[in-house]
Amino acid sequence: AVGWSDLDIRAVDTARILAADAVQKTGNGHPGTAISLAPAAYLLYQNVMTHDPADPHWLGRDRFVLSAGHSSLTQYIQLYFSGYGLELEDLEALRTWESATPGHPEVTHTTGVEITTGPLGSGIASAVGMAMAQRRQRGLLDPDAAAGESPFDHHIYVIAGDGCLMEGVSGEASSLAGTQKLGNLIAIYDQNQISIEDDTDVSFTEDVKGRYEAYGWEVIDVPWRKHHGTTDPEYLEDVDALYAALQKAKTSTDKPTLVILNTVIAWPAPSKQGSGKSHGSALGDEEISGLKKLLGFDGRKTFEVTDEVIGHTREVKQRGKDAHDAWNTKYEAWRSANPDGAKLLDRLVARELPEGFAEAFPTFEADEKGIATRAASGKVLTALADVMPELWGGSADLAESNNTTMGGQPSFIPSDRQTKEWSGGPYGRTLHFGVREFAMGLALNGIALEGLTRPYGGTFLVFSDYMRPAVRLAALQNIPVTFVWTHDSVGLGEDGPTHQPIEHLAALRAIPMLDVVRPADANETAVAWRTILEHTDHPAGLALSRQALPTVDRTEYASAENVAKGAYVLADTEGTPDVILIASGSEVPVALEARKSLADKGVAARVVSAPCLEWFEKQPKSYRDEVLPPAVKARVSVEAGISMPWHRYVGDAGRCVSIEHFGSSADGALVLKKFGITPDHVVAAANESI
Amino acid sequence: AVGWSDLDIRAVDTARILAADAVQKTGNGHPGTAISLAPAAYLLYQNVMTHDPADPHWLGRDRFVLSAGHSSLTQYIQLYFSGYGLELEDLEALRTWESATPGHPEVTHTTGVEITTGPLGSGIASAVGMAMAQRRQRGLLDPDAAAGESPFDHHIYVIAGDGCLMEGVSGEASSLAGTQKLGNLIAIYDQNQISIEDDTDVSFTEDVKGRYEAYGWEVIDVPWRKHHGTTDPEYLEDVDALYAALQKAKTSTDKPTLVILNTVIAWPAPSKQGSGKSHGSALGDEEISGLKKLLGFDGRKTFEVTDEVIGHTREVKQRGKDAHDAWNTKYEAWRSANPDGAKLLDRLVARELPEGFAEAFPTFEADEKGIATRAASGKVLTALADVMPELWGGSADLAESNNTTMGGQPSFIPSDRQTKEWSGGPYGRTLHFGVREFAMGLALNGIALEGLTRPYGGTFLVFSDYMRPAVRLAALQNIPVTFVWTHDSVGLGEDGPTHQPIEHLAALRAIPMLDVVRPADANETAVAWRTILEHTDHPAGLALSRQALPTVDRTEYASAENVAKGAYVLADTEGTPDVILIASGSEVPVALEARKSLADKGVAARVVSAPCLEWFEKQPKSYRDEVLPPAVKARVSVEAGISMPWHRYVGDAGRCVSIEHFGSSADGALVLKKFGITPDHVVAAANESI
Repeated sequence: AVGWSDLDIRAVDTARILAADAVQKTGNGHPGTAISLAPAAYLLYQNVMTHDPADPHWLGRDRFVLSAGHSSLTQYIQLYFSGYGLELEDLEALRTWESATPGHPEVTHTTGVEITTGPLGSGIASAVGMAMAQRRQRGLLDPDAAAGESPFDHHIYVIAGDGCLMEGVSGEASSLAGTQKLGNLIAIYDQNQISIEDDTDVSFTEDVKGRYEAYGWEVIDVPWRKHHGTTDPEYLEDVDALYAALQKAKTSTDKPTLVILNTVIAWPAPSKQGSGKSHGSALGDEEISGLKKLLGFDGRKTFEVTDEVIGHTREVKQRGKDAHDAWNTKYEAWRSANPDGAKLLDRLVARELPEGFAEAFPTFEADEKGIATRAASGKVLTALADVMPELWGGSADLAESNNTTMGGQPSFIPSDRQTKEWSGGPYGRTLHFGVREFAMGLALNGIALEGLTRPYGGTFLVFSDYMRPAVRLAALQNIPVTFVWTHDSVGLGEDGPTHQPIEHLAALRAIPMLDVVRPADANETAVAWRTILEHTDHPAGLALSRQALPTVDRTEYASAENVAKGAYVLADTEGTPDVILIASGSEVPVALEARKSLADKGVAARVVSAPCLEWFEKQPKSYRDEVLPPAVKARVSVEAGISMPWHRYVGDAGRCVSIEHFGSSADGALVLKKFGITPDHVVAAANESI
Repeated sequence: AVGWSDLDIRAVDTARILAADAVQKTGNGHPGTAISLAPAAYLLYQNVMTHDPADPHWLGRDRFVLSAGHSSLTQYIQLYFSGYGLELEDLEALRTWESATPGHPEVTHTTGVEITTGPLGSGIASAVGMAMAQRRQRGLLDPDAAAGESPFDHHIYVIAGDGCLMEGVSGEASSLAGTQKLGNLIAIYDQNQISIEDDTDVSFTEDVKGRYEAYGWEVIDVPWRKHHGTTDPEYLEDVDALYAALQKAKTSTDKPTLVILNTVIAWPAPSKQGSGKSHGSALGDEEISGLKKLLGFDGRKTFEVTDEVIGHTREVKQRGKDAHDAWNTKYEAWRSANPDGAKLLDRLVARELPEGFAEAFPTFEADEKGIATRAASGKVLTALADVMPELWGGSADLAESNNTTMGGQPSFIPSDRQTKEWSGGPYGRTLHFGVREFAMGLALNGIALEGLTRPYGGTFLVFSDYMRPAVRLAALQNIPVTFVWTHDSVGLGEDGPTHQPIEHLAALRAIPMLDVVRPADANETAVAWRTILEHTDHPAGLALSRQALPTVDRTEYASAENVAKGAYVLADTEGTPDVILIASGSEVPVALEARKSLADKGVAARVVSAPCLEWFEKQPKSYRDEVLPPAVKARVSVEAGISMPWHRYVGDAGRCVSIEHFGSSADGALVLKKFGITPDHVVAAANESI
């Protein structure tokens, strides 16, 4: 038994009234879960998790993921209690401009928050990525240590709610976690049976225990609420039972654990417990006053925290220091015994690129026939395998199509999951996400958040739609995830309109902080990868062709090194051009051909290759004006997708050669031709623009 | 037992060699599943489903959903066998330009195809919508008939593969189907344990049976393959067992049924059965020749179909006619007994609007304070409840926030799922999707595809990302689904950046065939809804404000009737304007204020309200030039999101007042101000542009 003192109980009750007061003061927020889940959160931070408030980035810490992100107070109050820097005035400033306590937890914004959550299901899915990353990191640095003995061993704790479990991505990720046997993952499912539409009986009646057992999880029931329903007169917060469940979960080595904690939302609020009214609105003065009286607080005071309570809760700092000290001994021993590992670790922590990085990239000879940029990408990855051990990734069941497998690298799978086609082991490198693009995206985010490795993941560009909320969260969290999106136009051919991206380049460029990179040939692909990996503070997505593209002769045209500038003059004219043709990816060769046709007719056309508009926008105006001189108004964009992103570049006199409708099932080259992505069409557009 | 003759077996084997030949001829495609699943598909079309090839739109037909859409030949060959219009030359033209046999099944393109599939998981989730719609339709037209006795009773059959079951949306939708007790839904899960990365052991080891039982489904095992693994020397295609399972499924009234059919992919192909190599590539001449010999076909011939076989399979037409005739008797009896119902049905089939439609819409008095457009939308829906019984919808657990509940209408839920907050019954009208935006979107598509009702569904605009592939499929399928996206800017306030849309209006406008409608006040909202409902051949999404917006005084400014034109001059100047301010939604009042400030300084500004750029683009050029005269180059767009869609409207001299970065958690009005969505900023931009 955990053996809480009266002071612990007072601290938990203090957490409840702080949650109620904070929401009431701001006038909006989510008090209910923060009230009823206070004991569970307190238990995690005070008794279960290994963490050190004095060093929020300590490598040895357990990770905490509040998948039920709307209940941000659940975490903020524990961060305040533990002494991570949040103070009472921060709680009072909940959800106000530039406060440390925004509506949902935001990583990098609030010390002690490991991940930005709020979009439901995303936390638990990213936690699966964290758990995978922990295993990979251990495998890279300390593979031979006994279980639980490595300084790189830690657990990932999650609090998830009904909403998280309803979202399909929790199913995708949890199924993957079962296949991966992630014993280091422990989730508490706060089953309060209340969501915004009140009692979840109207929409969510499944047997979650059965479902998670089917995924291969260990499931432990902790029924504080004994019956089906949202309330329970016999409700008992059996903290010891929860503690025992979590202790048992820690001993699991080959299964993730789901602790199903049946709660009454907002318990023990006198009239709004067990009701949707406590979920996402302030409780009101009367209800809060009643709650306070019930818990022995002064109903007229707000934000009442005694020194005794806060002094007691902050003792966790000492326990954290002790744990950290003990870990240091192990860690230093590991460093001494593993000088190469220590060197590698130091580089990874500093997020520095390895020696020999730039030299590792392949270059490709000029070649009319060329190769697909997805194939070039595969060669780049294989070339990086030895030099950049932190780089790893895979595909959502399209490994061969996405060219995401580094040649010769083992799969990251439990040994008994190996198949005829894929060998590997628990410390392997090639990731198999299954047909689960969204879970892949969120797991990649979790891997990046764990901090030591660089993940990438592939699918078809059209299915970036499936993972879009994950891409947004990568951008919002400023993390260096690389998305590999192949089959990037109708040029993919026969799979037809369900598989042919039309609007996707535009829609992805719309996401702030995301670099969308569409290289035009093999050499552009190599420089694109290099530039992406040089960035560590935001994600990027590569759009790569299925079809072969000519490898541009760089003795005749400009160097692919210019890719880093986002857009560059690939083929120029003598003097001022009559027209500028701006193209990306597979349409650059189309523009080059059009340029030749135009030259035959005495029209001087410049071709600008524009693999990444985001990088281009970061260049100084002088460079941008050099590439696209303001005086040259005749401009044509060429891209096999909608024109929306190009109007600002071609301007009033410009023309867009684009596709504004869905695709069609036929040979890719034919579809491109039928849809007007041809040199002739570009020539016609150029003549119109001039 | 179904009692297949030798001719049936020959027909099934003919289906196998046709699948192999068709892919081989085109050079690409998915032969494996079409080969091994031929008996199951044949059984459905020949012995199980009620359908009439002579009337593909027969109201009494069962629906077939090929969720494993890549295996389109599974369906095409049965459509050919049944006599839906496909002939041998269509199979020979597989995946070629304008053929009737595209890579994935496309509704409206190929007669007999009920739904466009390919994106995995989407078929089964839309099938859940079809099953819901069937019940609602029956409830509207023939609620008192005994189970199975109504002309509006039918089943929805699905074939889903491993990929469908891996996708999270299958979990969302199947959980919902369990809660909804959809006994009319029968899915065959082709468990061949092969996906593109070969043996699914690397990524998908869950117990699907346990998972579906947990959802509340009836699960029946039909283990043609007896062991775990991708192959089985004792493989036995026990068609009688499958038939018995499907017959049993038909008797289920309160649970959907999953038939788990363990197969060996591409069986009995001699060397590629049970291998990923048969999944998505042509088998090669040698393998096909071996397969043919094994099945007693001439290895040198291709597309070998005897008259006897096709004559036999087309006997299904007579059985279809008989079933249709029998149904007609019931149907005519129903019509006679229910003249009002018959009148309603005729209108629904014709997709005509009801009498009194236009008059039903509320109008709103001018009001400085006004109401949120989401609230106006709720009033519109409530006003339509009686006049338009085919209109129904709900929310992904945000009913009160999305204002998607028609006042006083019952919930669509099994009677024992009613809660304190929601009463209703199986024929109710208010949908509760739970926190499952993606399943909601696909279910809405399925409802629309069923054909008689008009569905809508709501969530926050930022979570349109979660449902984006469904929105795309609605557009691709030309179906009239209405998405209600509220909380449409950072103006939503405290929930912060995870909940604040920035890029979403742009990203949604990027989708072809989708109307994105962002009304500026209550009256624009009413006309927006009216215009959306007048369209029957494509979807629309409404972007609605959380915050109150002034109800514009239409005696001072132009009529909201202009909304139907997409953009219109709301407030004009004398003579030619100095500058045009183009705004949408909540930014229209900002533009109106800016106009006044500009007028004070002698600058004549026109304000264009632009609720729907897609509608505007459909207007004649003369109208567009009237609204945005080409001679007036000074232009400013105002929208609280990224500017990408506006550059083409503001042009070279224009300015965009926009938000190009993620949001922030604070009071919504404050966030808008901090981010520069203010009249002052618009005035400054106007002066720059002039």
